[in-house]
Amino acid sequence: MTQVRTDKILRVGILGFGTVGSGAYRMICDNQSAISRKTGFGFEVVKIGIKDATKERDLPRSIFTTDLESIVTDPSIDVVLELIGGVDPAGDLVEKALLNGKNVVTANKELMAKHGSRLVQLAKDKGLDLHYEAAVGGGIPVVQPLKHQLAGNDVLKIMGILNGTTNFILTAMEEEGADFKEVLADAQAKGYAEADPTNDVDGFDTAYKISILASIAFGKQVPVEKVHREGIRGITKIDMQYAEMLGYRIKLLGVADAVGPDRVRVHVHPVLLPKNHPLAAVRGVYNALWLHGDFVGDVMFSGRGAGSDPTASAVVGDLVDIGRNIAANGPGSAIPYGVGMELEGMDSLKTSYYLRVRVLDRPMVLGQIATTFGKHNISLAAMEMKTLDAEHGEIVFLTHPCLEKDFLSSLREIDAAVDVYEICNWFRVEA
Amino acid sequence: MTQVRTDKILRVGILGFGTVGSGAYRMICDNQSAISRKTGFGFEVVKIGIKDATKERDLPRSIFTTDLESIVTDPSIDVVLELIGGVDPAGDLVEKALLNGKNVVTANKELMAKHGSRLVQLAKDKGLDLHYEAAVGGGIPVVQPLKHQLAGNDVLKIMGILNGTTNFILTAMEEEGADFKEVLADAQAKGYAEADPTNDVDGFDTAYKISILASIAFGKQVPVEKVHREGIRGITKIDMQYAEMLGYRIKLLGVADAVGPDRVRVHVHPVLLPKNHPLAAVRGVYNALWLHGDFVGDVMFSGRGAGSDPTASAVVGDLVDIGRNIAANGPGSAIPYGVGMELEGMDSLKTSYYLRVRVLDRPMVLGQIATTFGKHNISLAAMEMKTLDAEHGEIVFLTHPCLEKDFLSSLREIDAAVDVYEICNWFRVEA
Repeated sequence: MTQVRTDKILRVGILGFGTVGSGAYRMICDNQSAISRKTGFGFEVVKIGIKDATKERDLPRSIFTTDLESIVTDPSIDVVLELIGGVDPAGDLVEKALLNGKNVVTANKELMAKHGSRLVQLAKDKGLDLHYEAAVGGGIPVVQPLKHQLAGNDVLKIMGILNGTTNFILTAMEEEGADFKEVLADAQAKGYAEADPTNDVDGFDTAYKISILASIAFGKQVPVEKVHREGIRGITKIDMQYAEMLGYRIKLLGVADAVGPDRVRVHVHPVLLPKNHPLAAVRGVYNALWLHGDFVGDVMFSGRGAGSDPTASAVVGDLVDIGRNIAANGPGSAIPYGVGMELEGMDSLKTSYYLRVRVLDRPMVLGQIATTFGKHNISLAAMEMKTLDAEHGEIVFLTHPCLEKDFLSSLREIDAAVDVYEICNWFRVEA
Repeated sequence: MTQVRTDKILRVGILGFGTVGSGAYRMICDNQSAISRKTGFGFEVVKIGIKDATKERDLPRSIFTTDLESIVTDPSIDVVLELIGGVDPAGDLVEKALLNGKNVVTANKELMAKHGSRLVQLAKDKGLDLHYEAAVGGGIPVVQPLKHQLAGNDVLKIMGILNGTTNFILTAMEEEGADFKEVLADAQAKGYAEADPTNDVDGFDTAYKISILASIAFGKQVPVEKVHREGIRGITKIDMQYAEMLGYRIKLLGVADAVGPDRVRVHVHPVLLPKNHPLAAVRGVYNALWLHGDFVGDVMFSGRGAGSDPTASAVVGDLVDIGRNIAANGPGSAIPYGVGMELEGMDSLKTSYYLRVRVLDRPMVLGQIATTFGKHNISLAAMEMKTLDAEHGEIVFLTHPCLEKDFLSSLREIDAAVDVYEICNWFRVEA
């Protein structure tokens, strides 16, 4: 570690020493000289709070404590990095750190999605910083650019590939022509997916992240528990193949659409994206955020959305900002947002749809389905048909944009038609 | 314009009312309510400095003045937006505005590239903000993310498509199989290129922008006049076709490579990019910045890099930050950088090369060229040959990475070989 001459030392406490905590610790040590030059401070990690004191670690035992509360109340600590994750006990610890006059950096998406408004307001009231760039998009700058450089815009739409695990799985399904379960097992073996993959593959993680972004962009906390959420378990390799034939890729997106003043639709689900959409090119564990603002137009950010080093990059970027602010004797720059965001339901969503059905191979079946769509004012953009065997066929429809409630009504009718024996799958399509 | 109840009014003076100035004015008016909510201030544009008072404009005559100096010295003005461009008189005006205690937002790449270090230091000394997000990448947040969210990284490499005009021309050449001159004429007719296109097509604009980014990333002002610079006039449709065959696209890039402490190579020239490189997908007037940091890994930002509205987005984002800072009574957040950056020359660049030569169709010619490359320790990665007529052939070589000085030495020898009658073109290749 290069020694840097600085008169002042900023004392840092880290809560949590898993992937993210150890990455942040390493970055603070490795890049100490550059960080000190930028802030005018030396940085010293004085305490690291852990759960299990018996685990073998590379650092002197004295730096660790299992008494996490002692860190957030320690009068000698200037900045707390909360890198535990989850609401409990992280939420209480962040709150106590702020109440004890400490600036806080957190990478905790669940905490910020659920309690961001209250915690940021507390930081603001105390004249402190609460930064959370690492909570969304790992190392990709998205949270702060939305708060600052894009702040003059009315944001009209945000779409993000915000979960690396699911994007890795979908990319592998596409490249290998494999089904979800095989790829998941492989991803678990390689450490890209957790033993219990629910948080990723059922869209919870994406829902936290899009909620945080929408809360910043639209100025009120999105009630994350009300966000419409579907995961990727239902995507089959057959759908992948049809999507490919039709010129699309299937991605799990977090989406926020401005519907009106203080009214936003926030939804997480697989989407068929045209291959030439910039988000369609985001592969493997990469993340990306695409945004449309009234003045900026389209803008996109992409990079590694998770992992020890990229997440450390965001945490330490926030730490540098705090260091500069302390050096300048400035007030905290927390930017609060309120509560009470009204979420628009999915019924009024207007988009295109992909529908795959299996039918009895009879003369009337296509006419029946097409007529049903027509009755609900839905016109068709594309169709693919395939004979499965002597008796059965498979048809894929791509509709023009229509209201989701109309699509779902037509779906119920199609399902009831005698010659349709299975509605296999349907997805929303970004035109 | 929605009226917003605010006790305080921030008084804004705009210098310049061309594309960018009028866009910023419109955005401040249109999004007044959102901006005021974010800053706690009302915004009033009180003066607009122009050159030609006789021109017909949509606003009351009283808001305009040709006495630009009166704006930067007006004690009632809080923030000056410098949207004139060029060094003279913009540089003096920015300096006077700072000396008169005004926060400044500028979109002026030439000014920041040439005098950034001094002006930012002046702002810092005065406790003011000097923001210049719009100077690079139009509406895409790149300047501030580099200063803040990525600040913990040692930046290893930056590559950017930073000029929309040249990217539009190259995209059109590729799509239409047309030559530079035809496409330039078309772009000029459509208003995408200036009557005198030098600043864009010869790489000056890109050089300013990559110099600003490198100055921030590496902490010292890059002497822009020493930046290696080549433009796009020499690219032919034949090269485009060979690039396509070999799996590449040709882009004009601004590049900054960290070579050592306080030592950077900054260069602007066409590059063959593999089609699967994220920058290769950036088309038309879009801009993008790709960056590799030691912790963040690869990260990319893309969007509209020029034009009235996107540039206004960046200017107003900076204005919002200044408003928030004034509301919080904070010190300015200007982040100075020094001078004295040493630029590494091109000789020591290690990269791959594309070479197209025309030869006499004789038995020894390929052996001669290949032997020359071998003598200079250059091995070949790919080759394409074509017969032009009974006597002549064309050969394209793609080398493995080698030192530029070795490549240039071999080139001189190849040029002197009796059976080579023309070195048509060569480009650097990103592997």
